[in-house]
Amino acid sequence: MSQSNQSDQSGQPLDGIEVIDLGQIYNGPYCSLVLACLGADVIKVEPPFGEPLRSRVEEGEPPELVMLNSSKRDVTLNLKSDRGMEIFKELVRDADVLVENYAVGTMEKLGLGYETLSEMNPELIYAHGSGFGDSGPKSERRAMDLIIQATGGVMEGTGFEDGPPVKTGMAPGDFLGGIHLATGVLGALFQRERTGEGQFVEASMYEAVVPALLSQLGSYYKDEEVPPRTGNRHSSLAKCPYNAYETEEGYIAILCASDEHWRTLLKAIGREDLLGDERFDTNVKRLDHMAEIDTMIEEWTRDRDRHELEDGLIAAGVPCGAVQTIEEVIHDPHLEERGMMTEVEHPDFPEGIRVPGTPIRFSDAALPEIERAPRKGEDNDAVYGEKVGLSEAEIEALEADGVI
Amino acid sequence: MSQSNQSDQSGQPLDGIEVIDLGQIYNGPYCSLVLACLGADVIKVEPPFGEPLRSRVEEGEPPELVMLNSSKRDVTLNLKSDRGMEIFKELVRDADVLVENYAVGTMEKLGLGYETLSEMNPELIYAHGSGFGDSGPKSERRAMDLIIQATGGVMEGTGFEDGPPVKTGMAPGDFLGGIHLATGVLGALFQRERTGEGQFVEASMYEAVVPALLSQLGSYYKDEEVPPRTGNRHSSLAKCPYNAYETEEGYIAILCASDEHWRTLLKAIGREDLLGDERFDTNVKRLDHMAEIDTMIEEWTRDRDRHELEDGLIAAGVPCGAVQTIEEVIHDPHLEERGMMTEVEHPDFPEGIRVPGTPIRFSDAALPEIERAPRKGEDNDAVYGEKVGLSEAEIEALEADGVI
Repeated sequence: MSQSNQSDQSGQPLDGIEVIDLGQIYNGPYCSLVLACLGADVIKVEPPFGEPLRSRVEEGEPPELVMLNSSKRDVTLNLKSDRGMEIFKELVRDADVLVENYAVGTMEKLGLGYETLSEMNPELIYAHGSGFGDSGPKSERRAMDLIIQATGGVMEGTGFEDGPPVKTGMAPGDFLGGIHLATGVLGALFQRERTGEGQFVEASMYEAVVPALLSQLGSYYKDEEVPPRTGNRHSSLAKCPYNAYETEEGYIAILCASDEHWRTLLKAIGREDLLGDERFDTNVKRLDHMAEIDTMIEEWTRDRDRHELEDGLIAAGVPCGAVQTIEEVIHDPHLEERGMMTEVEHPDFPEGIRVPGTPIRFSDAALPEIERAPRKGEDNDAVYGEKVGLSEAEIEALEADGVI
Repeated sequence: MSQSNQSDQSGQPLDGIEVIDLGQIYNGPYCSLVLACLGADVIKVEPPFGEPLRSRVEEGEPPELVMLNSSKRDVTLNLKSDRGMEIFKELVRDADVLVENYAVGTMEKLGLGYETLSEMNPELIYAHGSGFGDSGPKSERRAMDLIIQATGGVMEGTGFEDGPPVKTGMAPGDFLGGIHLATGVLGALFQRERTGEGQFVEASMYEAVVPALLSQLGSYYKDEEVPPRTGNRHSSLAKCPYNAYETEEGYIAILCASDEHWRTLLKAIGREDLLGDERFDTNVKRLDHMAEIDTMIEEWTRDRDRHELEDGLIAAGVPCGAVQTIEEVIHDPHLEERGMMTEVEHPDFPEGIRVPGTPIRFSDAALPEIERAPRKGEDNDAVYGEKVGLSEAEIEALEADGVI
């Protein structure tokens, strides 16, 4: 294991852990991005023609790829060639972790399944991300984001009562699946400290989404009359006010978690006259006047600037948040100060591109340095030299033969 | 540390790890649920009047609480009393991990901040889940789910082009935040194996949501003309067909990731006449006919049963998924077979209640047994006896004094 030879003492939790990353699109690469941010040496292995995410743009690299593969190294390798398989086994022989999110059974078909690899390297932690899991009646299904959202109940619970189910703009399956897989890898690494042995770990997108639907799952057992979709209102219609209100440009989310918030809000919107009004003085009573209250608040927000509203209400103590545009999120000074979004230099994005880091922070580790995602095969020479002991001439020949 | 005294060999990664859990509502409790599912001994510590989530129902326990606190133990403790603080310190002195998701600064105000606790127990891993993180200009903000979705860009990217931004029915901040925090705990546990020292770990909901918006973040850098909200169509309007289609009852999501899928779909819907039609034969061309194609597909799905459609299209090889209701998710035989949803007996739910487990699976560990969430204070006698060495009489006196 590389860990035992490690002299780097920068203090990241996964210093010295080597990850071979066959991840593609979002799910696997997010798992390995988190591991990279925790200090692991992640080597992304792509087919010579590139992983599928590359096909999203005709030239250069798609921003999604650049955002998900920071702080990794990148090599190309054709796993379908005999020599490619041999080289892959050399890489895995000394690795701590393998991450892949191919369809169930793909690695076995290539002759690179867990059994084969673990025989060669019993300390290997083999992590498989999938759509529906490695067993069960749905395991063979295709798992694009829209399908995970449909099957997983995300769509059913999103949208308005009188409208269709709606997908969320996030990719919940890929990211909840990916981070659960990373948790599994860390669990197995921790267990290996005691047992000395690696193991197979899996996490599926569908299953990872289910707990996040907790409000909906809870409603099923208690609120028989609540519609599955409540727009921007509370999922159980149990709080009022609680909504997104239109402003001069864009929207602001405002809610009152307590009657104190309600009284503060009334003062903020200049409706002190309602302060003693018994129709509205408790949350339970306000629930009977949701439309009226929402209209009243929106009349006030409609001509105002959402950021000024946000500043004022936060200062007054009313829970709220401007509905930020994606551009505002990307450039949020909070995320920049926290090191969550970092601008990196990249030849395809001459004006710079901001890429996410990790939300996980350790008091005893500096924030990981975010290095721009490598080009396809950028580290062929270094990795195949170091890890497989290939000479420059051998590497050139492999390139010419289409093996790397 | 309890680990060194551990004789349990059931083989869960976190066997012997003891977690003190001050988590409340969703975020902290999800973190500790994952740790419990990985084998940790989690002791949930609630105020004598119960954690805030309990107030969602007037009598008994809300299903959300029952779903999030399986396989934990539960004690009551008033941290605002001197004796309560003393007892808390006794609990933490021998623990491996403390999880809490109070507002930033709360534990310091109680005199129970990381510095105090780590002086007492240098091996302690102190995990703090928050809305916006422990630093930065937004760190003091209130962080209810709706606000995280507003600030985090989730709402902006969800809904239809001509409609308002929409929240998702999931609670992405709580759950993405919670699982990232669990990942951090495991990273710190792994690092402790080398350093012998604990540390402070944090993860915020806002930051945990940002990477999951990857398609939106990518669009910002490449698709200037794509609206932020595309309904159920592809986030970059880059695939067609790709939508949710109305059926006899409910909806079905169907997409074509390849031209082969398109040809298969045409055969399935009985439109072989369009097989050679040059207007539709590549994805790029189909993008110019999105409305027409969606209408054609929906005319076919509208009178059909979504599960029969799903079975037929999956058999034919077209990626799709019925939009499942929450009830269907809860009772999905796939989730049951995989052990992801388990029916537990609970006195408040005489007909049974299904609770989620974890999507993380290890080849060398049996699926964790899901035990019903404990009642408030159910384990006072056992825990305060074992861990603090209190006698029955002392425990009774503490109850009478409102300390536990």
